[in-house]
Amino acid sequence: MNRLLSEIRHNPMLWLLAFVPVVFAASMLSPDAHTLLFLLSVLAIVPLATLLSHATESVAAKTGDAAGGLLNATLGNLTELVIALAALRAGEYMLVKASIAGAIVTNTLFMLGASFLLGGLKHHVQEYNRVSARFQAGLLFLATVALLIPSAVGTADSATATAFTAKLSLGLAVLLIVAYGLGLLFSLGTHRELFASAEHGEAGEAPWPIGLALATLAGVTVLVALVSEIFVESVQKAAETFGMTAAFVGFIVVALVGGAAEMASAFSGARKNRLDLSVGIALGSASQIALFVAPVLVLLSYVIGPTPMDLQLWPGAVVMVLIATLTATLVTNSGRSTWFVGALALMVYIIFAMTLYMLPPRVQ
Amino acid sequence: MNRLLSEIRHNPMLWLLAFVPVVFAASMLSPDAHTLLFLLSVLAIVPLATLLSHATESVAAKTGDAAGGLLNATLGNLTELVIALAALRAGEYMLVKASIAGAIVTNTLFMLGASFLLGGLKHHVQEYNRVSARFQAGLLFLATVALLIPSAVGTADSATATAFTAKLSLGLAVLLIVAYGLGLLFSLGTHRELFASAEHGEAGEAPWPIGLALATLAGVTVLVALVSEIFVESVQKAAETFGMTAAFVGFIVVALVGGAAEMASAFSGARKNRLDLSVGIALGSASQIALFVAPVLVLLSYVIGPTPMDLQLWPGAVVMVLIATLTATLVTNSGRSTWFVGALALMVYIIFAMTLYMLPPRVQ
Amino acid sequence: MNRLLSEIRHNPMLWLLAFVPVVFAASMLSPDAHTLLFLLSVLAIVPLATLLSHATESVAAKTGDAAGGLLNATLGNLTELVIALAALRAGEYMLVKASIAGAIVTNTLFMLGASFLLGGLKHHVQEYNRVSARFQAGLLFLATVALLIPSAVGTADSATATAFTAKLSLGLAVLLIVAYGLGLLFSLGTHRELFASAEHGEAGEAPWPIGLALATLAGVTVLVALVSEIFVESVQKAAETFGMTAAFVGFIVVALVGGAAEMASAFSGARKNRLDLSVGIALGSASQIALFVAPVLVLLSYVIGPTPMDLQLWPGAVVMVLIATLTATLVTNSGRSTWFVGALALMVYIIFAMTLYMLPPRVQ
Repeated sequence: MNRLLSEIRHNPMLWLLAFVPVVFAASMLSPDAHTLLFLLSVLAIVPLATLLSHATESVAAKTGDAAGGLLNATLGNLTELVIALAALRAGEYMLVKASIAGAIVTNTLFMLGASFLLGGLKHHVQEYNRVSARFQAGLLFLATVALLIPSAVGTADSATATAFTAKLSLGLAVLLIVAYGLGLLFSLGTHRELFASAEHGEAGEAPWPIGLALATLAGVTVLVALVSEIFVESVQKAAETFGMTAAFVGFIVVALVGGAAEMASAFSGARKNRLDLSVGIALGSASQIALFVAPVLVLLSYVIGPTPMDLQLWPGAVVMVLIATLTATLVTNSGRSTWFVGALALMVYIIFAMTLYMLPPRVQ
Repeated sequence: MNRLLSEIRHNPMLWLLAFVPVVFAASMLSPDAHTLLFLLSVLAIVPLATLLSHATESVAAKTGDAAGGLLNATLGNLTELVIALAALRAGEYMLVKASIAGAIVTNTLFMLGASFLLGGLKHHVQEYNRVSARFQAGLLFLATVALLIPSAVGTADSATATAFTAKLSLGLAVLLIVAYGLGLLFSLGTHRELFASAEHGEAGEAPWPIGLALATLAGVTVLVALVSEIFVESVQKAAETFGMTAAFVGFIVVALVGGAAEMASAFSGARKNRLDLSVGIALGSASQIALFVAPVLVLLSYVIGPTPMDLQLWPGAVVMVLIATLTATLVTNSGRSTWFVGALALMVYIIFAMTLYMLPPRVQ
Repeated sequence: MNRLLSEIRHNPMLWLLAFVPVVFAASMLSPDAHTLLFLLSVLAIVPLATLLSHATESVAAKTGDAAGGLLNATLGNLTELVIALAALRAGEYMLVKASIAGAIVTNTLFMLGASFLLGGLKHHVQEYNRVSARFQAGLLFLATVALLIPSAVGTADSATATAFTAKLSLGLAVLLIVAYGLGLLFSLGTHRELFASAEHGEAGEAPWPIGLALATLAGVTVLVALVSEIFVESVQKAAETFGMTAAFVGFIVVALVGGAAEMASAFSGARKNRLDLSVGIALGSASQIALFVAPVLVLLSYVIGPTPMDLQLWPGAVVMVLIATLTATLVTNSGRSTWFVGALALMVYIIFAMTLYMLPPRVQ
């Protein structure tokens, strides 16, 4: 417990934890102050996500590489998963899908681009393990194909087409989870030596004791779930107040909030010239969401959602995911990076954000 | 003749030749047993295709590299060509186009992917000549552009648009054949040394005497033509019985049957760590179909078809060919392969097969 | 002045300058002879463009690398800019957009492809600096995304959508100019050493005295502007006479005329085995048009055009720009070239030209 307190004292971001009780109090006192609740829940989720990622890493460090990698991989996007589950239970499928696509795009373009830019401003040319980047880009490419094909093939809007999309989405969800499992087997099992340089101890901090880590994991997950509920309820209304489109909120705001903790690690890795860490977090997180979180949400929608959710995105989102994957592939192809490469990826992200921000409501 | 018999005795796949007389007998006795005829014709085509590819290789080995390469290239996809011709004469243009697109997709994703997977399960990391893979991928890219452009540009469905598509297809067909010829000139002529490692004697078997090879070539081609006629007549009806969509049959079933012999060679090459052979067969076969078989069918449709056939595919097929070409380009970019790379390519193929299998009839 | 005359005497292309007074005379004597005026204006623009590029290089050589590079970059596509301005003032936005897209496509496919082909016919395998090619391809990729996104996202044709496209185009125009500026900072500033081999003295000719260069620059720009006016007025009518579609004229004819001078330099560089020069001119020119000329035209349309112009292209043009960028990326990926690589790029260009030439008027 002392350990946890000292961690909080030394990490300014964790001071934001003070907002956790505040958001609960506010949501009970004035449940209709959507804009306030939105801001408070964002401020509360960010430090909780940071704690969650620390706890996950500590547990992973204890259980050995293979099991730890699996744990890290499955728990790494817990925040995104919990936010999406809250939206799923509320039947807000548009928000779920936008946040999935947004997380993929934000991780591959914003997190990767800003890492390259921040690293490149300090170091002239940086090198990293391109085998690992290619592997993640390959997984992302597969997921993009799975997201693209239902839209490309099924066009008619009849009941038959809906049934087809639902059945196909179920099949694709299972296939993506299998691909994700095979990817873990490959990168942590049969060919782990190819991924060597990407493995030098995340963030270099001493891990927490296992008991503390597990307790934090359990407690913080519950807190994130509760705050996410408030976030999902308030975000749409708050967006209207700020004049943001729903697409912009789902794609950009939710993705940035959900990924805040990972971004902190990725950027700090890039500044320390440990670009393998940054590339691993950015692309690994994106492929996790595409191949694990998204299909799991489709499967869970049969259990907890009002109706089954399919994998079909709106055409604009498919194009953005496709461009993000292509950009990641082109950008990581050489295994070297400079500030300009990062700036290019960020520019693509800004084009997307600008488009979504200006999008008139009816065109979405 | 003894040579041919001993070959048949030692190759279990050739025992299937017994089905050739059976399918002819069945088609005369009960011409309406479509499912039976479909199964029998598949069982008969596979060994005939194997014989055909052996005979072609033997002739090619005799005539020297340049002429032999040309012969091998033009005769290598004889089975696909003969099946497509049978469909062309019957005016089944949808089936012809589906089988062309399906053969491209099946060769680049299934044949290449399964070769990488089977080879990778035995060998940790395999290397191959990436110049050759890039060359084939470049040809495929050109063909994909030619298939994509008529759909991307001409949208209106008027009579003018049809005339435009027909005229454009004729021009594109001639251009693709010219590109194919230039490719042969490059890879067998001016820059043959770049393709070196891909040339170490196909399958390592002693070639047949030239007389036997030529006689086999002639006789088996006639047999394949006759069996293909039965296959094309029965396949659509049989598909309905099995609950398969026409798109699935054309894309997947016909392509797997037509490529059976080449797949056997490609997989055996991969197991023997001769991946240049596998990549050459898979991508070479795909680019042959795209740049030679498809345009020749367009030209022949003016002679033997009921109306001229154009090169325009349905949008879903264009997307699949495009994704297959992109996958081949990405996957062969490094010149190294592992089991996981093969698994990724196969997964993309499974996504396509799953989508086509589930496709409701009216959405095609 | 003697210098200029001696230059004209030794360069046969400059003899075409005789057509400059002829075209002015003809336009006054018979302003309705569109076909004649079109031919004469083409013959007059080509030598003027050659003079303009010589003068620009001479000024650039005097002002030192950084400022000179900037000058060269901003003035290099002066002909294209002046032609587009004439069309912009006439409110011919379709022609402006077609000529932008056409210049990108023509530079990346025709100029690059023909350079590789002509160089490859003389030299077996040529090598060049792939860092520079990748940098230009990255800029082109960003511009392609900017051209693609408005079409991909905004579909409804309402007044809202038009306002959205106009606002978005303005934002994208500013972003592209910023990206272009960052690209200059990167390639001429912070990381100029990466672009080393691309810098060995353009064309190897002794530069003109600065006074002559500046005077030529000013005088020739005025002449190009005047001739362009005649060209833009006559080109559409002349096209009908020759049976060419408006799309073909804008995409192919205008682009070839506008880029004639640069093509001469690129091809001569390739024959002299200085492929860095050719790749730099071809891709550099394409990215300049995409990231500088096009956005500047959008901004200028608010000042000199009848209504604001947006960045949205017709879908077929977007596909062509996308394919051209992809081709440039794939083709320059290895840093080596042979005649066949050039032939492939040219074939893609021929597919586009053929499609646009055959396009029935109503489908455009």
